[in-house]
This record gives sequence, structure tokens and C-alpha cells, in this order.
Amino acid sequence: MAKAITPRSVDYSEWYNDLVIRSGLADYSAVRGCMIIKPLGYALWENMRAVLDRMFKETGHVNAYFPLFIPKSFLSREAQHVEGFAKECAVVTHHRLKLAEDGSGVVVDPDAKLEEELIVRPTSETIIWHTYRDWIQSYRDLPLLINQWANVVRWEMRTRPFLRTAEFLWQEGHTAHATREEAIAEAERMLDVYARFAEEYMAMPVVRGVKTPSERFAGAEETYCIEALMQDGKALQAGTSHFLGQNFAKAFDVTFLDQHNQRQYVWATSWGVSTRLVGALVMTHSDDDGLVLPPRLAPLQVAIVTIPTVEEPQMTVARELAEQLQRIGISVTVDTDETKRAGFKFAEYELRGVPVRIAIGKRDVEADTVEIARRDTKEKATVPRAAAVEHVRGLLDEIQQNLLRRARQFVADNTHTVETFEEFQRVLDERGGFVLAHWDGTAETEARIKELTKATIRCIPLDGAPQEGRCILTGKPSSRRVLFARAY
Amino acid sequence: MAKAITPRSVDYSEWYNDLVIRSGLADYSAVRGCMIIKPLGYALWENMRAVLDRMFKETGHVNAYFPLFIPKSFLSREAQHVEGFAKECAVVTHHRLKLAEDGSGVVVDPDAKLEEELIVRPTSETIIWHTYRDWIQSYRDLPLLINQWANVVRWEMRTRPFLRTAEFLWQEGHTAHATREEAIAEAERMLDVYARFAEEYMAMPVVRGVKTPSERFAGAEETYCIEALMQDGKALQAGTSHFLGQNFAKAFDVTFLDQHNQRQYVWATSWGVSTRLVGALVMTHSDDDGLVLPPRLAPLQVAIVTIPTVEEPQMTVARELAEQLQRIGISVTVDTDETKRAGFKFAEYELRGVPVRIAIGKRDVEADTVEIARRDTKEKATVPRAAAVEHVRGLLDEIQQNLLRRARQFVADNTHTVETFEEFQRVLDERGGFVLAHWDGTAETEARIKELTKATIRCIPLDGAPQEGRCILTGKPSSRRVLFARAY
Repeated sequence: MAKAITPRSVDYSEWYNDLVIRSGLADYSAVRGCMIIKPLGYALWENMRAVLDRMFKETGHVNAYFPLFIPKSFLSREAQHVEGFAKECAVVTHHRLKLAEDGSGVVVDPDAKLEEELIVRPTSETIIWHTYRDWIQSYRDLPLLINQWANVVRWEMRTRPFLRTAEFLWQEGHTAHATREEAIAEAERMLDVYARFAEEYMAMPVVRGVKTPSERFAGAEETYCIEALMQDGKALQAGTSHFLGQNFAKAFDVTFLDQHNQRQYVWATSWGVSTRLVGALVMTHSDDDGLVLPPRLAPLQVAIVTIPTVEEPQMTVARELAEQLQRIGISVTVDTDETKRAGFKFAEYELRGVPVRIAIGKRDVEADTVEIARRDTKEKATVPRAAAVEHVRGLLDEIQQNLLRRARQFVADNTHTVETFEEFQRVLDERGGFVLAHWDGTAETEARIKELTKATIRCIPLDGAPQEGRCILTGKPSSRRVLFARAY
Repeated sequence: MAKAITPRSVDYSEWYNDLVIRSGLADYSAVRGCMIIKPLGYALWENMRAVLDRMFKETGHVNAYFPLFIPKSFLSREAQHVEGFAKECAVVTHHRLKLAEDGSGVVVDPDAKLEEELIVRPTSETIIWHTYRDWIQSYRDLPLLINQWANVVRWEMRTRPFLRTAEFLWQEGHTAHATREEAIAEAERMLDVYARFAEEYMAMPVVRGVKTPSERFAGAEETYCIEALMQDGKALQAGTSHFLGQNFAKAFDVTFLDQHNQRQYVWATSWGVSTRLVGALVMTHSDDDGLVLPPRLAPLQVAIVTIPTVEEPQMTVARELAEQLQRIGISVTVDTDETKRAGFKFAEYELRGVPVRIAIGKRDVEADTVEIARRDTKEKATVPRAAAVEHVRGLLDEIQQNLLRRARQFVADNTHTVETFEEFQRVLDERGGFVLAHWDGTAETEARIKELTKATIRCIPLDGAPQEGRCILTGKPSSRRVLFARAY
């Protein structure tokens, strides 16, 4: 067996890295900062993508595909956007290689220099709004509700599988509207879609909020976000939805004739989630033995192991049961590998996060029972064979609910309300988690708190009630608490 | 209404370009050679992808994702591969932009030059086989059956939407096997999958064959292909499947311990189809009025138009009928746009290739009938309302079959068997199409024929019987006819 997984209590960060590699979610690649998404990790992403894609289509969106490359000059068109994205990115400068004269392989052909450099898209607002200029003429062309599934590249200095990689997979919605109100409603609707997906499918509770001005997306008037809490008490931004105002419409001159024949600038939103969600899922539920995957997203829901593998009576029961489970839409495998022992197989399925494991031994066949183990609590039950299908169906639902319940309890236990800066620091250092505290609303105080504690304002929660108070750092008046945390 | 579509008889090439743009399949972009796949084109690709993905999974493959970038040195590792792919490609040389000192936007930061340039993948054999070295140790790790859905970039000089673009979307299968026989069987199996997909879903007949050595994929020992015939008599390569021998295993040192504990090099295949299939579909079935899409791939199968739109009795019938069709899995829309007349709508649905159009007027409501029009033949039928659902269901099948039948007839009518070079030239110039002729098997003759006639050997058909004859150019003996054509 390969290197064991570092326990969370020893080093949470190492635990995560070990788990991602050992479980077969991803692998490191020969290209700096880029990972390989292995079949298990990709199947998980495919399941996430399928659910999200359905949710996007149900809310009226269609998919399209825009070029990977963005002309360099496009990035400078929107003043804030250039500050945010014209930094660490992959720049294409040439379009040809040639054989080296010394026979040492290939070299870049200096004669094939591009007139204007191309940037590998870090996000697609600029190329899309350049296009929308041609697509939008009249109010009848609005709203334009487009989503794109794509790869993007941001040249990150410090990378970790799924959480922060130079290349990642994501979706980016880019919508155009006739009014400010409609665009804001769209940005909020998509935040709701993300929050519902996180809770109902990932079993990951999230706090919905808006970012402070200094944490906004480059070019946005308002950035909505969902924030999740990982097991080590650090926050993770799981999705963002931006109200872009008329910034991109003005930068790319996108106007429409309204119903009164007046020319107006278009209002915009953009919103995205990425393969980062795979990392969030891992860090929300998994344990020292491996992945714990919610049944609604798990690529494989049930694994059946016969003991010993080769005995025909056990195998007959296993095959029959598998067929019955498949018939009601449950994904299941019967393990037929004769070269490995049951104990080894159990550990492998635990490592890979399969929600339910069924074992069938000689005595089970005699007693007409099966042994059913759940991954989340490790509990086992011996169940009459005739009741097995219903038991598994119910158990998958119960695991899905239990994961959400457990994660909600964790967030509740690790969300602290503090009144003073001293308390703030002590909670962060001793317990971590979300910290609700008053803030005076200035960028200076926000920066100073970050400098002193490494904690950032994750969001101004949308469901927080206004409450008078005093800023923990400056003592100045504050009208509501904001959510602080150290974050990924 | 925008610019009309050039008729095929006037200029086939213009017809294609006009149709792709006017129907909303794709648009030109600001980036040289890159297209924008618009919602209709992308929905078509999504439908193709869903079917192919299911077929790949049914044949035992899993999906994964490898990096977009390939280190330059990887391309030189396989001697033939470098000749084929280290040419026109996008080269990333820098990883940062900075604000220009003169305030004129952004410039490439010279301090951020990469130590080794990265190539945007033109195909992924090299990075994948570099990885397989770590993943394959023993015969128990084989076969390794992986597919990737991705974007790739080849810096083409002359581009056309879908048919040849600098960036395109595709899938690339990369499999590893313990024996030569098994790898060859895999390459042939995937060719069969492609051929079945082309005929059963795209309604596009194809000739299966192998490429001549000079037309092989760079690095392959055998390239299998499917070739289709477009309406203008030019051939189009629709998919390829390569038996790679041990070339990549040797270049990247990928070995395994076999059952006798002997170290062996691994055998490989790769296979792919791309968004080019969208272009092939358009050119196989469409006409001067617009797209003709096969029902099994059409994003929208049925459009219902009420005349006039606003009348409630018609709309009630339309909504009821739509619901019934949806219930049996048929995609349908009820057109509620009151700003456009029925005639305009009919033309738009024809342009967009919707297989079946239903019109419901006042007299239809009175007579309890609906008018059902099929896109492929433009025939209309008045059908009792009560029989409409079954009629549509049957009609969609009939259209699917008719398109294949019609396309097969076209291939049969445009496949010519010739004996002399004179006849060969005359057929090519006067009629185009596939030409079956004897060839002496040498690369020199193949090149000379291409030079003289612009026709290439599309493939050596797999189902062609051996037949003695004489090469049309040199008169030397030949043991079978090969398939020539001018091609896209």
C-alpha cells in the first residue's frame, strides 16, 4: 500500500494533499501549477456540472463557447478590470516552432511573432462584451442569458489541487439586461442557484453575502458570494455572482434602443463556480480514512463485496441485488477482483468515498441477509436480503441529510460573535471559524485588521439583521455585523 | 431581414458560410481563426457529445482532464510527432503583463519570461504518455481506457467555421494496452463507434478505411478513418482512430511487468472527433432555405406556431399538444412572439433546421385538426388533432431515416469506379465525388496524382474486396482499389 494519509490532527493541509492524490481525485502534472484531474475527480465534476447545467437551463440560460484567447488590448478597455486581471496570466507571443539548427529539438520561430499578443483567458468578460456589441441592438434582444463551460488560466504563484491551480475548469455566466433592477435580480437569482446547489447536492452549508468594495471582482459594482467553512476553521469562497453595472457596456460600447426608441447602455452580470468546488467538497466532509462523498454527487453510490470473491452463491446474490439497485437508478458495482482481500477492498472503497458498502459472506447467504455499511458514520447493519433494496435507498437519503446536518452543526459550533478586538484575535487563534463582528465600513480598517490577524471580511451576510454597534478595531459606529475569517 | 443565403448552385462555399452565420450556429470572433459557437451550434455539439460520451462509457472508457499546456521539449520526444505538430501552434512565452509606462494600456513584462516555453495543446499524446509512465507499472494497470473532452489549438492559415478553426473543441481518447492485438482491436472498435454515430445519429453515411502511410497521424503505425461525402462532391474526414504501436511508450519510457514478470513496452491508441462534425452535418443535409437537422440530434424537434398568435383557442390547443409531446420525450416550443407574422416564423424555423413545424389556425381549431410540416421534404399534412402526437412521433423517425436514405443515395450516385487516368481526371472535374481507382501503392504516385488533380487518397476502404488491376497513373500492378477525392 502506498503512503498513508496524514491525519487531520497532525497537519490538515498535508491531509488534504495526501487525500486528493491517494484517493485518485487528481495528480500533479509536468506543468507548473496545473493538475491532472483523474477519472474519479472528473466524474465528480461531471456530476456537479450536470446538476448545475440543468439549474442554469431551468432559469432560462443557454450555453455558448467563446475563444480561449483574448487580444491583449481588450484587457485595458475596462479600467478596474485591467488592474485585476492584466497581471499573472499566460501570454501567447508566437505561433510557430521550428526544428533547432543544432538538432536539439524545437525552438520558437522568431519570424512567427504575433502582431498583438494573445492572453489565455483568465475570465471572459472582455471578449464576450466585445461580441455582445454586435448581438444587441434593441430591447427585443434582451435579456441575453448565456453561460459558458470552459477552462481558464491564472498564473498563480502558490497552487494546490482544486483549490488554486493555474488552469482550472469552470462555468461563467454572462448576461445582458435592459434595466439595473433586472440585472441585480439576475445576480441574486444565480447566487441562490449556487447556494441551493451547495446545500442540496454538496451538503455544504453556505453563508450568502456581498463582498466589501475592496474584495469585489475587478469591474463589478457589487459582488455576491457564498462562503463555506472548512473543517480546519478556515473559510472558502465557493461561488461569486457579480452585478457589473454598465461598466463593460461602456467599455465595449454596447447599447440598445429601448421601447421609447432611446439609446441606452446595457446592464450586465457575470457569475461562476469552478473545480474549486471539488476541493470544498473534500474539505467539508472527508475524514482520516478517506473521502466522504454525498450520495447525490458520488460517482459510485454502492459497492458490493463478496467474501470470498470466487464463491458462486455469494456472487449470485450480489449480482441480483446490483441489478435491483440499478433498476431504481442507484449506481452500483460488484467487485469481482480475486487478487485482493475483502479488508483491502473495504479500505479502498472508504478511501474513495463510496457512500454505501455491502458485504455478502457465506453466513449471509445461509441466513438470507447482507451486511450494509455506511461511509459517513462507519455504522454497519445486518439486513434481511428482501429488505436490502429499500434499506439502501433510504440509507442514501439519510447519509445525504446527515452530511448536511453534521456540516451545519459544525458551522454553528464554529461561528462566534465577538465584541472586542482582543476577543476577535483570541477566537481566531484558538478556535478559528467564522467570526461575526462590527466594522466601521472603511477600507483602511479592513486592511489593518487583515494585516494584524490575517483574517478578511468574507462577506456582509445578506440575512443578517441591522444591529447598532462599535467597530472592534476603531470603536467607530457600525450598523451591522460582518463575517470575518481566515480563508483559503 | 438580414442578407439572404447564397444558393448552393451559385457558390457552395458561400452558401455554407452564409448558412452557418445566418442560422445562428456560429459567429466570427475578434481573434484570428477562432470562432464563437453560438447557442444553436453549441446545443448541437452538446447533443453530439452526450451520445458519444455514452458510447465511450458503454465501451469501458472513463473521462479525465490533462493540462492545456505542453512543455516545448515534450513535442520533440517522439520523432514523427514533432514533424507533424511542432509547427503552427500557439506558444506561451511569458506569464505576466504590466501597465505600460506611457499609460497606453498593458505590455508584456520582460521579467516574466518562462524558462521553457509552453505550447497550447494541438493534441495531448505527449503530456498524457508522460503521465502514463507513473500510472502504469504492471499488467494489472492495463488496459487504461481514458477519454478527454477539451479544446485544442492548431494555428491554421486558412480557417472556416467548424471545418477548420485555430481553436476547436473535441474529444481525444488515449488508451494503453498489454498487447499489439488488443491495441489494434481498440482502434478498430472506436472507428466502429464513430461510424455508428455518424450513420445512426448524424444520418451521415461514411466509408471506413485506413490512411496511406503519407496521410497517417504523426506518430501512428496505422490511422483508421471515416470519410464522408459533402453535397458539392468533396470528401470530409469525419473522425480518426490511431494504432500508435509502441512509439509513445518508447518515447516516454512507459513499460509494465507482464504476467511472466518481464518488462515490456506498452501499446497505444488514440482517437478523436471534433466540432468539425457540426460542419459535416450542415453540409450533408442542409438546403438553400437553411439547416436540415436530423431529429436525433436537433436541439429543438418541434415548433408550434399559432395563427394569429394571440387567439386563445389556438393557443390552448398548442399548449396541450406541446405538453403531450414533451411527455413522450420530444423537445418542443410554442411560439408566443406576437411581434412576428407566421410566414416570418416559418422561414426562421426552416433556417434553424427544426425537423417538424406545426401550425394551428382558426379553421384548424374548428375542424379539430393541425397542420404538420416536415423540414426535410417541405411536405405538409393536415392531421386530426387526436392523431397528432403519434403522427409527430412517427414523422421524426421517418425524417431521421429519410435523411440517411437520401444521403446514402447521394453517395451511391457520386461514387465512380474508373480505370484510366483520363477518366479519373474527367470524373473529378465534371462530377466530383468519391472515385475508386487502382494505385500502385507508392508515396511518389500518390503525391504526383495529388499534384496533377488536387485529389488525395481518402482511404483504403476496409470493406473493399481485393481486386487485381493496374495503377491509373503508372500502370503498375495493384491489388485493390483505393478511394480518391478532393477533400476539405
